[in-house]
Amino acid sequence: MMNEFELIQNYFNWEHNEPSIELAVGDDAALFNLLPGHQLVTSTDTLVEGVHFFKDASPSDIAYKSLAVNLSDIAAMGASAKCFTLSLTIPKLDHEWLEKFSSSLKESSRLFNVHLIGGDTTKGPLNITITMMGSIEIDSAIKRSGAKDGDDIYVSGDLGTAALCLKKIIDGESPNLNELEKLHRPVPQLELGSALKHVASSCIDISDGLEQDLSHILKASDVGASIDVLKLPLDESVTEYVKNTSDWSLPLCGGDDYELCFTANKSNRDQIRLLSENLKTKVTKIGEINSSKELKINGYDGHSSSYQHF
Amino acid sequence: MMNEFELIQNYFNWEHNEPSIELAVGDDAALFNLLPGHQLVTSTDTLVEGVHFFKDASPSDIAYKSLAVNLSDIAAMGASAKCFTLSLTIPKLDHEWLEKFSSSLKESSRLFNVHLIGGDTTKGPLNITITMMGSIEIDSAIKRSGAKDGDDIYVSGDLGTAALCLKKIIDGESPNLNELEKLHRPVPQLELGSALKHVASSCIDISDGLEQDLSHILKASDVGASIDVLKLPLDESVTEYVKNTSDWSLPLCGGDDYELCFTANKSNRDQIRLLSENLKTKVTKIGEINSSKELKINGYDGHSSSYQHF
Repeated sequence: MMNEFELIQNYFNWEHNEPSIELAVGDDAALFNLLPGHQLVTSTDTLVEGVHFFKDASPSDIAYKSLAVNLSDIAAMGASAKCFTLSLTIPKLDHEWLEKFSSSLKESSRLFNVHLIGGDTTKGPLNITITMMGSIEIDSAIKRSGAKDGDDIYVSGDLGTAALCLKKIIDGESPNLNELEKLHRPVPQLELGSALKHVASSCIDISDGLEQDLSHILKASDVGASIDVLKLPLDESVTEYVKNTSDWSLPLCGGDDYELCFTANKSNRDQIRLLSENLKTKVTKIGEINSSKELKINGYDGHSSSYQHF
Repeated sequence: MMNEFELIQNYFNWEHNEPSIELAVGDDAALFNLLPGHQLVTSTDTLVEGVHFFKDASPSDIAYKSLAVNLSDIAAMGASAKCFTLSLTIPKLDHEWLEKFSSSLKESSRLFNVHLIGGDTTKGPLNITITMMGSIEIDSAIKRSGAKDGDDIYVSGDLGTAALCLKKIIDGESPNLNELEKLHRPVPQLELGSALKHVASSCIDISDGLEQDLSHILKASDVGASIDVLKLPLDESVTEYVKNTSDWSLPLCGGDDYELCFTANKSNRDQIRLLSENLKTKVTKIGEINSSKELKINGYDGHSSSYQHF
């Protein structure tokens, strides 16, 4: 028998040497200092068994992805991630599962230089909620509401690979390693987000699909946009899929691509090309913002079907 | 059909006029400014259906309690609560449930002057995770680790009433209104916690039961304690129950009492009496810290059975 206190001590009380964290796991609340002139940036995301991952999913993948999806939201603000709380609801005390989950979370935390500072463990159907906290210089965050008529629209990385992977699994086909990597181990665009401060006019993490998430930028900014399906960045698998099926819904609406969609004034084109080269991060211009208040997707007449939670 | 965006707009995007919150619900992350010289205080707690509340529990009570249990952790640090994120996992889009939950959460937020700044809504077994953020002047937080040999030990309020209420419900008896109030509508001791800054040497929220939570203070402070069951503050119902059964386990180990247990140097007795009077909050001295590293409970030879999560 292990009580919650022992569970936390065993699996989730890691050493850290981050001077801004005065108190992490082990008190009623954590204490954390922001740098002068910075503000707190915070976001929360939940993964639920059977909805966000399959029932037999690897605990290592679940831990990694719980962290990555939250980091992606911090990246979309241009902010630096610092620390997080974990609320872990598990059906039973399965030490093998906990050991794998905890090791992967610890390893992933180190990879992204973020620190677990608190949490709660409860009994119930598997549910992982992380609340990520970061910071950014005041007046520097990239909001959804800053897109302007005439701005270019960009996306990072490739689109639709995670959705294609999921489709293959559901259809009983075998995804290749690159596809599985994109679904289970998405890489949050933290460096790109940070480099886009004072360069991008708006930014969003396209985890629910480009079409739906770009629409959030348009609504928040009170503008419209025209994008072109032939400009969408696709990897080989998705290129092949679209060629065979003429179905653009995966890259447009597929979701689970933890890439950034952002807008920028045309005068920033050289700067964006340069930062893309420096960071070795693919950035593709896919269209322009206009004053129409509509999203026009040239070359796509399909039914919009971005990820719906309900 | 309602997507997540519409769900949030309908139920969880409330007006606020808190100048420290630059960006609340509706972007990838929220932006929040701390006062100069303050640090972030954060804590997270989850309520799971069937574990923390019954299957048919009132959505209003669930919303209130989700907020209150998190506020209690902030209170135990002596900090001020400012804002929170909500991660809500619900089995289906039940508008009547959501309307009641959302109204109660909004009303409770106003009562405690805290602001919803972000969240996530997902589909799955009912699970409510709130991450509360607050602030406190640097070097003022009351930690678990500060108790010293010779300090007095105090608790706020009365103990065991929530546990007695739960016991009555499980046993098919009818709790009275006061008992139900203590179980479903616990009042976080925010004013008391704040008044104890620089007065208490250590503090903890005794949500898991006095015996277990006081032990956390002892362990963190590397000290022992002697308390006396006859000094425990009990209301009429619990007094009657203990008289009839000689069972002290409810006030000692019952849990769900969102009261504070704190320690303070003997020289602060007058100050503590005064602040208790000023705040009209009952505070009772129940024992003393010593150097034994053991918790001795005089008058209790029962089996310790504080709330275990697993």
